Amino acid sequence: MQLKNDFNTVRKRSMHICAPLKTEDYVVQPVVDVSPPKWHLGHTTWFFETFLLKPHFPGYKEFDPNYNFVFNSYYETVGARVIRTDRGNLSRPAVEDVMRYREHVDKAMQAFLDTELSDEIRSLIVLGLNHEEQHQELLYTDIKYILGHNPLMPAYSDTAVTSITTPVTEQPFLQMPAGLYEIGYKGDGFCFDNELGRHTVYLQDYQISTQLVTNAEYLEFMEAGGYSDFRHWHAEGWDWVKREQVKAPLYWHFVDGKWMQYTWQGQQPVADDDPLCHISYYEATAYASWKGLRLPTEFEWEAAAPQLSWGQRWEWTESAYLPYPGFTKAPGAIGEYNGKFMVSQMVLRGGSEVTPPNHSRLTYRNFFHPSLRWQFTGIRLAK
Amino acid sequence: MQLKNDFNTVRKRSMHICAPLKTEDYVVQPVVDVSPPKWHLGHTTWFFETFLLKPHFPGYKEFDPNYNFVFNSYYETVGARVIRTDRGNLSRPAVEDVMRYREHVDKAMQAFLDTELSDEIRSLIVLGLNHEEQHQELLYTDIKYILGHNPLMPAYSDTAVTSITTPVTEQPFLQMPAGLYEIGYKGDGFCFDNELGRHTVYLQDYQISTQLVTNAEYLEFMEAGGYSDFRHWHAEGWDWVKREQVKAPLYWHFVDGKWMQYTWQGQQPVADDDPLCHISYYEATAYASWKGLRLPTEFEWEAAAPQLSWGQRWEWTESAYLPYPGFTKAPGAIGEYNGKFMVSQMVLRGGSEVTPPNHSRLTYRNFFHPSLRWQFTGIRLAK
Amino acid sequence: MQLKNDFNTVRKRSMHICAPLKTEDYVVQPVVDVSPPKWHLGHTTWFFETFLLKPHFPGYKEFDPNYNFVFNSYYETVGARVIRTDRGNLSRPAVEDVMRYREHVDKAMQAFLDTELSDEIRSLIVLGLNHEEQHQELLYTDIKYILGHNPLMPAYSDTAVTSITTPVTEQPFLQMPAGLYEIGYKGDGFCFDNELGRHTVYLQDYQISTQLVTNAEYLEFMEAGGYSDFRHWHAEGWDWVKREQVKAPLYWHFVDGKWMQYTWQGQQPVADDDPLCHISYYEATAYASWKGLRLPTEFEWEAAAPQLSWGQRWEWTESAYLPYPGFTKAPGAIGEYNGKFMVSQMVLRGGSEVTPPNHSRLTYRNFFHPSLRWQFTGIRLAK
Amino acid sequence: MQLKNDFNTVRKRSMHICAPLKTEDYVVQPVVDVSPPKWHLGHTTWFFETFLLKPHFPGYKEFDPNYNFVFNSYYETVGARVIRTDRGNLSRPAVEDVMRYREHVDKAMQAFLDTELSDEIRSLIVLGLNHEEQHQELLYTDIKYILGHNPLMPAYSDTAVTSITTPVTEQPFLQMPAGLYEIGYKGDGFCFDNELGRHTVYLQDYQISTQLVTNAEYLEFMEAGGYSDFRHWHAEGWDWVKREQVKAPLYWHFVDGKWMQYTWQGQQPVADDDPLCHISYYEATAYASWKGLRLPTEFEWEAAAPQLSWGQRWEWTESAYLPYPGFTKAPGAIGEYNGKFMVSQMVLRGGSEVTPPNHSRLTYRNFFHPSLRWQFTGIRLAK
Repeated sequence: MQLKNDFNTVRKRSMHICAPLKTEDYVVQPVVDVSPPKWHLGHTTWFFETFLLKPHFPGYKEFDPNYNFVFNSYYETVGARVIRTDRGNLSRPAVEDVMRYREHVDKAMQAFLDTELSDEIRSLIVLGLNHEEQHQELLYTDIKYILGHNPLMPAYSDTAVTSITTPVTEQPFLQMPAGLYEIGYKGDGFCFDNELGRHTVYLQDYQISTQLVTNAEYLEFMEAGGYSDFRHWHAEGWDWVKREQVKAPLYWHFVDGKWMQYTWQGQQPVADDDPLCHISYYEATAYASWKGLRLPTEFEWEAAAPQLSWGQRWEWTESAYLPYPGFTKAPGAIGEYNGKFMVSQMVLRGGSEVTPPNHSRLTYRNFFHPSLRWQFTGIRLAK
Repeated sequence: MQLKNDFNTVRKRSMHICAPLKTEDYVVQPVVDVSPPKWHLGHTTWFFETFLLKPHFPGYKEFDPNYNFVFNSYYETVGARVIRTDRGNLSRPAVEDVMRYREHVDKAMQAFLDTELSDEIRSLIVLGLNHEEQHQELLYTDIKYILGHNPLMPAYSDTAVTSITTPVTEQPFLQMPAGLYEIGYKGDGFCFDNELGRHTVYLQDYQISTQLVTNAEYLEFMEAGGYSDFRHWHAEGWDWVKREQVKAPLYWHFVDGKWMQYTWQGQQPVADDDPLCHISYYEATAYASWKGLRLPTEFEWEAAAPQLSWGQRWEWTESAYLPYPGFTKAPGAIGEYNGKFMVSQMVLRGGSEVTPPNHSRLTYRNFFHPSLRWQFTGIRLAK
Repeated sequence: MQLKNDFNTVRKRSMHICAPLKTEDYVVQPVVDVSPPKWHLGHTTWFFETFLLKPHFPGYKEFDPNYNFVFNSYYETVGARVIRTDRGNLSRPAVEDVMRYREHVDKAMQAFLDTELSDEIRSLIVLGLNHEEQHQELLYTDIKYILGHNPLMPAYSDTAVTSITTPVTEQPFLQMPAGLYEIGYKGDGFCFDNELGRHTVYLQDYQISTQLVTNAEYLEFMEAGGYSDFRHWHAEGWDWVKREQVKAPLYWHFVDGKWMQYTWQGQQPVADDDPLCHISYYEATAYASWKGLRLPTEFEWEAAAPQLSWGQRWEWTESAYLPYPGFTKAPGAIGEYNGKFMVSQMVLRGGSEVTPPNHSRLTYRNFFHPSLRWQFTGIRLAK
Repeated sequence: MQLKNDFNTVRKRSMHICAPLKTEDYVVQPVVDVSPPKWHLGHTTWFFETFLLKPHFPGYKEFDPNYNFVFNSYYETVGARVIRTDRGNLSRPAVEDVMRYREHVDKAMQAFLDTELSDEIRSLIVLGLNHEEQHQELLYTDIKYILGHNPLMPAYSDTAVTSITTPVTEQPFLQMPAGLYEIGYKGDGFCFDNELGRHTVYLQDYQISTQLVTNAEYLEFMEAGGYSDFRHWHAEGWDWVKREQVKAPLYWHFVDGKWMQYTWQGQQPVADDDPLCHISYYEATAYASWKGLRLPTEFEWEAAAPQLSWGQRWEWTESAYLPYPGFTKAPGAIGEYNGKFMVSQMVLRGGSEVTPPNHSRLTYRNFFHPSLRWQFTGIRLAK
């Protein structure tokens, strides 16, 4: 009953996120990391059809066999797929067909959820819902990119997605003592495989900032020539700055002598006190270097997080995305979930204004390539 | 009156071509040479707004100043523009906005056409209509590419765009005597600047085929290993064959031991007697070389054309696209029309099943880069 | 006897050209169009070994079977070859090995030349010598590029390769009447296959400049903003200017407020009265457009050439490189010589300061891609 | 005195490594990661000239100011430099000039070493020698690549660089208990900045293999289809396998039904019992996954190393190259040494047959991008 409620809540939320879009907005892919919204809607549906309904619900009638090719993402196990760069080249299936696909699968899932389900099946459904929640965050980030890179800069909606309240704290840094800490998920609820393998780490004593870096603080770095002083950058980051001619965070534009940023409501002046957003790992570490500080590791973050306010920005950490001790992949296609990305990515901790409610947690490990900025990323410092 | 009728006929025909499309089909750009249909609809409208209404119709109110940036194509004179590879990344203006743009401009043009117009203005309107007719052909070729490269291979319509009747002639080759011929446009009607400069050329005696190469004839070349024998190919063409792994004309697929081709009605068996279509200049010359023959020059084509049946396929000629003697550019942005493409392109003569009625003529010079195949191109031989 | 003399003269001249080089200069390939000098020395030798000695001189012992792979250029018939971009990655065979290879083949050729040779064989040897002369010109152009793109800008020699004397004429333009002209090679001497098929063309009346454009004249174009005014450029040329950030002819550098150019003697001030050199077809046509003139066609050039002074610069013409009427390829690998390049190249006529003596002639058709500048190219105007 | 001896020993060793080369071998750069040997010889010399002689030895006369541009590598502080991909395009300075440069600097250094030197200067000299030793290893790896990718596959020398003796141990795995371990350099000798910040880590109990994976063991993986089963690969590694069409370790060739490998003595059969060499991190982790095991972390490696035999292969670890707690960059150009590479690289521990004697140590942190294979890399497993 609870699972059925959860299923319906999550599935409806994806539709709610897309409600302000025009049909055309569902189709385009302005950069390879962005997927067309209709692809997200189809892909999350394909997950339930492929891993639940087809193998486990006798009598289920597949909606369209071609959709396996179109909506498969990176599951090599499950057959051929549209290459990632081609997603924005497909006008069909049309948006209305994708909606019918969702209805078809949702209806079958209602019936399936009314049957007696094993624990294994229930876990798989919960995984499917967490998977869809991850794509809900991507829907927001991709929609922002699609609209924010259009020369007309249309607004997504008149009201902010969520309001950000920046807590004020008296202590700029939290002092953490050296010692042994337990890292990784513990409990009965859902977590991803990459959080498992709870284990002990030894941390040196450290301090971690209680607040995120603000736009005003980052502007100081910019005005001090931060983007043109190689000393603060990784070699790879410096190449990126020069090649991409980066001069400011993503969505920032210098208009008539003033910094503006594209927001959900269209172009707006940069708000000084808001936590900085949409920066790469390279920018995060360059800023930290300029301040004479550093980023926390993911272990330092997790140990301190209960005493911190977090969840407005995904915070870059100074940890590469690697397996915890004892990490093992699940068998089959589901086993492709996380382990295969464990190279050349950095861990982000926290959550963002577009993370689904209750989706993130203290032990949640988000990860992206250090050059990417279209997620809602920010900076917390350590020393 | 005639001009107003022509205007309305041409403008309606663009809408008619797009009638079978879904909204999503208007948006995508699966390859750089293809433009999204909504872009063609906007760009042809922008031409009338920019070159007629704004400079010459006092009181005209521009629809949206941003559209100049979005729908400008290659007119450097008229300001910044969306780079060509980005056309498929723009979800806005939405299709309905483009339709409103067309209505807005069409309505103003009706009023403008009711005023007293100078000959120069009338010529510019005629140029705008011929320009739109060129884009009507591109609409067809681009729509075919968009649908034909979708893994679902949807049909464009149930009925053929036009029926092709291949005339049967007894004489396979027409014998033409050596001598002086007049080349280039003569008359009072409309022609493009690249056809002007009527001039004399001397041609050696030659023979030109009365019929186009058929699918069955080209299949012989394929089955004789034509795509794997470098001797028939230009060095540049051979590199292209290997790099792109070309093994057949565009839209041909080998399915279950049989050659199929994507058509307006979806996937169909290749029809043996139809004139071959969708081949590059490289393929055209390789086929000719394999037959021990050659392509005609554009002058040979024009001299013989009154005695030939033509108009089903754009026929690659062995002539590079270069200015006629005395060619001069018109002043201003209109002068960018043709001259600036006169390098690295080959001339095609004739017309195709998707060329607007009465748009082509004996002296019409179409041109494309030798590697391109998404136009309705075919082969006529000479010796 | 004459043939043997010619053979020895030509072969020695290649060594003479390379005499000022250091071993290291023989090895590098700073850009794909340039080949390492040791490759030219090996490749021209390979021609005699492959097409003369191995098939026609019984008892000849191949120097090293691996060399066929290393020194084959574009002859698909004769087996696998080192891809062009890899030529500069090969430190072996060492220069001294290439020299021993030349000696080995030269010695065998001496013996072969002392035998009774058929006309066909003699023609093939003459072709081999003309082939080597073409590579002698490339040796000069490639050596200039190798040294001129080195940050140390070393001189090639203390004395100019040849001195250029610019003839002064009173008539700036030669008037040519309309009428029929004969084009193509006539005579008993050697010519390339692309010059054959002597044929009649009809030319409109035209004027052709008696002098080449000078550095000073081209500087006027530069100072008038020629490189930043798109109106004078082909679309493809304009893209090239922007992509490559071209601001001056190749080898020109603006140093301390003054235009310098890399010459055989190192960096020197640009000489005002010298004929302009090292420009692309795009630049040639942009300059002509700025002057309100045009380039001559290759037919206009050939008809007027007996009355012109020419041979200091390869002159871009407004003719694409296409087959003459009746052009046929020779059978076998030799047949790959010219025909396969007859697409996407422009014809140059004349000759340059580094063209071997008596190598060029009135009917000689040189050809390069319109973007290339490392040849000794210049501009003659027509109207 | 010791320092002067060390200086002379290290400097001579670089020359000794290059002794078997031909002049041409010093010049080429067949792939971007490889540098021409003459560049290594110049760059290591430039280090002493730039950081010691010019700032600290009054009266020193710079050899050639242009060399700063040519031989600077990645030190942004010290001015412009030849871009990395261009190193193989430079025929000058000639090898003999580089040798004269070395002699010039060595001579000055002799004099400088005879003066009273501060501790700071002595440290800088020691850093310069360790820097040159790092380039000595690169000289070996780059020379192997240059010769091994030449179609003639010339031998480097008749005798092996060093002989490899594989110790046989009875215990396949060493059992290590959970607990606190100290990581990082301790002592008075030289170490790099990235080894400093000795600190405590907590390790879970683990087992680490006492022997490296052999060629025969890896062949089992290959024969079991390891290169075509995506399940064992990181997504990024799988893309790499497909894009580069990787089917075996670098330098392996399947010839007449048998695996051969390019060695210092030329092409040889793969030796079954030798430790596997020249594999990427992707291959290392895919092999480990296929065995149901994993790679050790760099901390596990360092804790166990005193009980292991190591030094024949650089061993990929499952640790990303990141700063130790308390890592700080040295001020100035020297500070660019290591920190700026701390992103997107994996740590290797151990040493190889071409690592200079006494150059590596238990705490030494080597690092490379996970795709690279031209170093002497191997696999040790853990569980």
